[in-house]
Amino acid sequence: MLDLCLVGTGGMLPLPSRFLTSLYIKCQGHALLIDCGEGTQIALRKAGCSFKSIDLICITHFHADHISGIAGLLLSMGNADRTEPVTIAGPNGLCRILSGLMVIAPELPFEVYVRETGHIDTPISLGAMKIQNFPLEHRIPCQGYTIEVPRAGQFLLEKAQSLHIPMQLWSHLQKGETVSAAGKQFTPEMVLGPARKGLKVTYATDTRPVDAIAEYGRESDILILEGMYGEEEKLEKAEERTHMIFSEAARLAEQAAAKELWLTHFSPSIADPFEYKTAVQKIFPNTVIGEDGMKKSLKFVL
Amino acid sequence: MLDLCLVGTGGMLPLPSRFLTSLYIKCQGHALLIDCGEGTQIALRKAGCSFKSIDLICITHFHADHISGIAGLLLSMGNADRTEPVTIAGPNGLCRILSGLMVIAPELPFEVYVRETGHIDTPISLGAMKIQNFPLEHRIPCQGYTIEVPRAGQFLLEKAQSLHIPMQLWSHLQKGETVSAAGKQFTPEMVLGPARKGLKVTYATDTRPVDAIAEYGRESDILILEGMYGEEEKLEKAEERTHMIFSEAARLAEQAAAKELWLTHFSPSIADPFEYKTAVQKIFPNTVIGEDGMKKSLKFVL
Repeated sequence: MLDLCLVGTGGMLPLPSRFLTSLYIKCQGHALLIDCGEGTQIALRKAGCSFKSIDLICITHFHADHISGIAGLLLSMGNADRTEPVTIAGPNGLCRILSGLMVIAPELPFEVYVRETGHIDTPISLGAMKIQNFPLEHRIPCQGYTIEVPRAGQFLLEKAQSLHIPMQLWSHLQKGETVSAAGKQFTPEMVLGPARKGLKVTYATDTRPVDAIAEYGRESDILILEGMYGEEEKLEKAEERTHMIFSEAARLAEQAAAKELWLTHFSPSIADPFEYKTAVQKIFPNTVIGEDGMKKSLKFVL
Repeated sequence: MLDLCLVGTGGMLPLPSRFLTSLYIKCQGHALLIDCGEGTQIALRKAGCSFKSIDLICITHFHADHISGIAGLLLSMGNADRTEPVTIAGPNGLCRILSGLMVIAPELPFEVYVRETGHIDTPISLGAMKIQNFPLEHRIPCQGYTIEVPRAGQFLLEKAQSLHIPMQLWSHLQKGETVSAAGKQFTPEMVLGPARKGLKVTYATDTRPVDAIAEYGRESDILILEGMYGEEEKLEKAEERTHMIFSEAARLAEQAAAKELWLTHFSPSIADPFEYKTAVQKIFPNTVIGEDGMKKSLKFVL
C-alpha cells in the first residue's frame, strides 16, 4: 500500500489559502517527501502527515518555493525526537545549497546524508519503494521523480512442491530472497510467475512538457504535474517562464497512458483552479484538480 | 501615528493555528518588521500588511523560528515589484547567516543593506521612527528593540512673533530644522516648548527577564514580551531554556511602568494562552494575550 498526500498545491509563493506544492508518500512505515518550500511543515501538520517518519526528502530544484522550508522541517523533526538519519536527494549543487540553508540548523539529533543525483541516477531504495529521478526542462536544473513499488510474480505452489523446497523457506522466496536447503540453492525465479504490475506515482513540476515525463511516467497510477496557468492564452508566458499550462499537462497524461492526473503548483494568479476543470477533462478525463491535503491510498490490484 | 500588527504569536515552530512571532509597524509610509520566521510572509498577507513597503527588517537572533522566512519574504517583495533598498539589521554574525540563507535568492530587484548592530548601537532612523537595539539574555546573542516616534515641544507663537521670524519659516522650525532670515539664524529651541511625550513600543522575545528590558522599555505605550510558558511550574524549564513565563513578563511590565503589555511567542505546548489571562492580569492588569494579526494604532496624546 502506498499512501499519498498532496501536501500543498501552490507555486511561486505560499498563500493563506494555499501552501506550496509538496508530496508526501508513505509505504510500510517509511515516508518520502518531495519538495519542501516555506510552510511545508505547517501543511504537513495540517494534513496529519507524521513528519517524524520522513526518511528521504527529494528536491526537484533550488528555487525558494521548493526548498526554503527544509531547515525548519529538519529542526521540527529533531524536536519530535527523531534520531534516525535522513537522506536529502536533489540535483547537483545540493550540498552547496544545503550548506547555506542549514546555517540556522547547526545541530540536529540525527545525521543528514546528502545525495546529489546526476543527470539520471540509479534508483534510491526506501523500504519497498524505488525512487528514480529524471531530467525536466526549467530555467535551472530540475528533476522529476517516479516512485514505484514493484510487485513480484505469483508464488507457484506446484513448482515449489515439485522442487521439494521446505515450506518454511517459501516466504523468503516470495520476498525475492535466494535460499538454500539440503545443499541445494533455490532462487525466486524458480517458484515465481512473471512480475505483476506494481504501483507507480510520477511527479514533475516546474518544467515545460518534455517527452521524458511521458516516458518515465508511463502507465503511472497517478501522474502529478504542474498546472501553472489555466488559460490557453497564457501559453506564451508559460513558455517564457518554463512552466506548463493545464492543457499541456493533460496531453502529457494521455501520452503517458496514466491512470489519473493530479494537477498542482498553481500560480498565485489562479484564484480557483476548478474553473478550468471541465476544459482540461475534455483532453484527459481522469484529471483531478489538486487541493491542499488531498489523499489517496494505492493498493495492488488482485 | 504608529500602526502595529502582531503578525504571529508562536514560538519554536509554526503551527496551522499559530504563525511564528513577528511584529509589523508602519509609520508615515515606512514599514518595519521585527523577525521573520517560516511562514511570516503568509501571516503578513493574512493580516493584510503590505510587505512591499517594508524598508527595515530587524532580527532578534538567529534561531530558525526568527529568521528562516527571510529569503522567501524578500523574493515575494521582489515579485511585488519593490525596487527600493531594504535594510536588514541584527546581531553580529548577520552577514554570515544571510550569506547562507540567501543562497536561494541570488537575484533580487532591489539592494539589500546589512547592518550588524553591536552590543548597543546608535539608533536606526526610519522616517519618523528611531529604532534602538538592546541586549537580551538567551542561549545565543539576542537583542530587543525599542521603536520611538519622538514628539517636538509645542510651537510657541509669541516667541516666534517676538523674534520676528517670517511666518513661512515656522513649519520648518516645527519640524526641527534650523532656518535663516535677514542674516539671522533661528533654531527650533528658540520657538519650541519642552519635548512632549512621543510614542514608544518595545519588543523583547527569547530572553530571561533582564533589567535591560525594563530600562529600555521604560514607559512604553506597548511592551511586547515573550510568554513562552503559562504555568508557574515551568519556571525551571524556562530558566534552563532561557525563556520567560507569563508572570515574569508581567512583573517586567510593572517594573517598566508600561501602559500595556502584549504577550507573544507561546510554546507549541500552550493550546490556549487565554487560560492564563486572569492570573497574569493580577500582576499587571493591562496585559493583553497576543493573537495572530492583532492590530492597534497609537496616536500622540493631545
